[in-house]
Amino acid sequence: MELAFLKSALTFHNPFNSTEKVLEWVQERNRQVHVNIEQIRFDEMRNWFIDKDRVKLQHSSGSFFSIEGINVKTNRGAVTDWDQPIINQPEIGFLGIITKEVNGVLYFLLQAKIEPGNVNNVQLSPTLQATKSNYTKVHKGKAPDYLEYFTNHTKSEVLLDQLQSEQGARFMKKRNRNIIIKVQEDIKVLEDFCWLTLGQIKDLMLLDNVVNMDTRTVISGISFGNHSEETVSFFNLINDGLSGLGSKFLASDLNSEVSLYSFDEIIHWFTELKTKYDLNVESIPLHTVRDWIIEESSIRHIDNKFFKVIGVHVEIDNREVTSWDQPLIAPLQEGICAFIVKEIDGILHFLVQAKLESGNFDILEMAPTVQCLTGSYLNENSLQTLPFLDYVLNAKEEEIIFDTLQSEEGGRFYREQNRNMLLLVGEEFSIDVPENYTWMTLNQLKIFIKFNNYLNIQSRSLISAISFK
Amino acid sequence: MELAFLKSALTFHNPFNSTEKVLEWVQERNRQVHVNIEQIRFDEMRNWFIDKDRVKLQHSSGSFFSIEGINVKTNRGAVTDWDQPIINQPEIGFLGIITKEVNGVLYFLLQAKIEPGNVNNVQLSPTLQATKSNYTKVHKGKAPDYLEYFTNHTKSEVLLDQLQSEQGARFMKKRNRNIIIKVQEDIKVLEDFCWLTLGQIKDLMLLDNVVNMDTRTVISGISFGNHSEETVSFFNLINDGLSGLGSKFLASDLNSEVSLYSFDEIIHWFTELKTKYDLNVESIPLHTVRDWIIEESSIRHIDNKFFKVIGVHVEIDNREVTSWDQPLIAPLQEGICAFIVKEIDGILHFLVQAKLESGNFDILEMAPTVQCLTGSYLNENSLQTLPFLDYVLNAKEEEIIFDTLQSEEGGRFYREQNRNMLLLVGEEFSIDVPENYTWMTLNQLKIFIKFNNYLNIQSRSLISAISFK
Repeated sequence: MELAFLKSALTFHNPFNSTEKVLEWVQERNRQVHVNIEQIRFDEMRNWFIDKDRVKLQHSSGSFFSIEGINVKTNRGAVTDWDQPIINQPEIGFLGIITKEVNGVLYFLLQAKIEPGNVNNVQLSPTLQATKSNYTKVHKGKAPDYLEYFTNHTKSEVLLDQLQSEQGARFMKKRNRNIIIKVQEDIKVLEDFCWLTLGQIKDLMLLDNVVNMDTRTVISGISFGNHSEETVSFFNLINDGLSGLGSKFLASDLNSEVSLYSFDEIIHWFTELKTKYDLNVESIPLHTVRDWIIEESSIRHIDNKFFKVIGVHVEIDNREVTSWDQPLIAPLQEGICAFIVKEIDGILHFLVQAKLESGNFDILEMAPTVQCLTGSYLNENSLQTLPFLDYVLNAKEEEIIFDTLQSEEGGRFYREQNRNMLLLVGEEFSIDVPENYTWMTLNQLKIFIKFNNYLNIQSRSLISAISFK
Repeated sequence: MELAFLKSALTFHNPFNSTEKVLEWVQERNRQVHVNIEQIRFDEMRNWFIDKDRVKLQHSSGSFFSIEGINVKTNRGAVTDWDQPIINQPEIGFLGIITKEVNGVLYFLLQAKIEPGNVNNVQLSPTLQATKSNYTKVHKGKAPDYLEYFTNHTKSEVLLDQLQSEQGARFMKKRNRNIIIKVQEDIKVLEDFCWLTLGQIKDLMLLDNVVNMDTRTVISGISFGNHSEETVSFFNLINDGLSGLGSKFLASDLNSEVSLYSFDEIIHWFTELKTKYDLNVESIPLHTVRDWIIEESSIRHIDNKFFKVIGVHVEIDNREVTSWDQPLIAPLQEGICAFIVKEIDGILHFLVQAKLESGNFDILEMAPTVQCLTGSYLNENSLQTLPFLDYVLNAKEEEIIFDTLQSEEGGRFYREQNRNMLLLVGEEFSIDVPENYTWMTLNQLKIFIKFNNYLNIQSRSLISAISFK
């Protein structure tokens, strides 16, 4: 399948739907569907309540997710003991994309989906985006469209199936099942759905907030063919048609022979850091969370930092359930995620950070070079203490090869968009980096993605944006 | 380094220490060192106590480990809700082996070490076997021998460095850092230490209880050279000198081209099962553990099943601290671990089980075909419900290619030895297996070992026994 994925990534002209038509269609869906999102008080929320002991903010069914309190202790970083609210959603949901092969190219069935927190309402989401509560019908709505293709493998072939983490600073060890399947039969394309090539999806990521977080994480795991003769000969065939940069990214993805560090050296680096750093997280009642206040309609930090929890009333016409209430996390500061990329021994290498976040499943995950989501990065302290932040913010124009705003999941986050950047730095950028940073090729990153809880969502989001155009 | 590892695995005659001499030396150390292990009441134990609320059995320093209670809920298996005591040891310790290359062959520095629970006192352990409490000197003894080679990498080169899990039914998410380093300089060989080739270590595993669990887990992670031309040409060179079986195991280890299932298919299999099965573990006070009784000198199941926790007084002359008290886990039933191996498409494949255990870090780990440690396997119910148990127990003599008793870690387990078996089955054995089983080559298993919390300790122990002789 790797070749069909690669051909899809290199197909920018879709005979069924041009990228311009897709964008028009997204805007059209946006106009057609009635959406109303209103902030309300917690005590006005239907089916959600903060229990009398104020342990957590939860749904009356006990399902979906809850907002809980945690105490975090660690020996990493300047702050080693803090409390915070966090989303607890222990269920593993589906983020699934149906594909179909036409003339050797895979087409991805994406959905123009509205989430209550989306900054622009409609974004392109996977074919299926369902929590366990969704697909086991706790909400008593209709079953999600196309669910049966994912639950019944006689109807499909599985191309990719990985457990992947979500935001470690916001979710308690949350993971979703990222899955791509391929169907042989013709399937009905419902009103909100549309076939796109991988190349088109990457093109759409050059625009702000069109491709949603769930689509980005699913496609980030696609491997384009380690070692396969078929793929390498295809690469040689098409290489001349690629831009210099596209060709270099593709080489970094396919080449498993050249890298600054061997795979075992990277595992050694990560093992040593996991041994060095402790992360102890304990559940605590929400009302005892230090430095946070529960108010009528928000749970916020006393200094209005990080984020706040709000309640919203939602009306969206084309969803399984058309009206409901739910909590959302609203960011209070702007965020930035950036990978610094550098050519080493003729192959592009990514500067990867081992990052500790409170909700991480296993202490550390591999993050972008710079990742500031929950703290304002535009202050003197951050600029002085966060490695490479200053470099990224003052990058020369010719170094910036990708720079857009991408949204976090609109089902949980209220209008949260973060700046996503890729920087290609020159020879003068040192390969000597602090101990919790290392250099990896795209090929190495893609291998780690296959194994759950190595690459964090922010690094996967950036990787999904890499185009071979 | 892979070639030096392979040469070590194929070197059975050690010019410095013959295997016979090593065995004699182990027995000699056994005679020389005074050992006295006495079972005592919990209230007689120095520095250990069950707190007044009977929450746990712990050390007065708060370090080392503790015996705690957990409630386990799962949707897997016939029993879906139970309580049990478990060892909580959140610290990541070192299991480290120093190697040195002589004439292209790596020699491993092993230690004749006595642990209080060892059935036969002395077993061959890694160069360094130290909990964080050990090496940060909570016990105020002397620093462990050779520690500095592991903490100061300027003195050594790291060949392998992996986080690996321990017994999921006994430990709460415990992991150790498995590390192999190589030194250039000559190092002093202390009285209890000795250089062995990997081939010799595997030879010694043909005997009962000589190679301890910690040595077995460390060497299980050694990779012999995926794809390297150097290794393949060496393989062709030496292949004629190997037995048919040795050659087949080596081919299964080196060949990354042939396998019944692709790597992505195996990840899919594991992802689906991790999504399907829930594991919810909650800490509870030790005295509230249902069906277990805290007595004067043991914590045991009301039916005397599974295991019991006891306290011992220990005197061992050659340890950093020569006398101490501690709890140990004493098994109450015999155990068995067996891999069924079958040639498929000309390559040996292992029948791997996805097994849920209460202390697993991530729901499921990959276990041997049959693993019965904590329940008696010699009863009608087990024989009827546990897949392949009956087959293993009634295996034909010519199918059994490895069958010895191997000890669990004597620092925590009291005289626990389990039967370790490898079975080579014929054509008539079906490749169709229940959904939580799959077939993998040794090459695939070795890749999973590199990533933490995939292969469990029992499967790693069996893999460590595989010889290419």
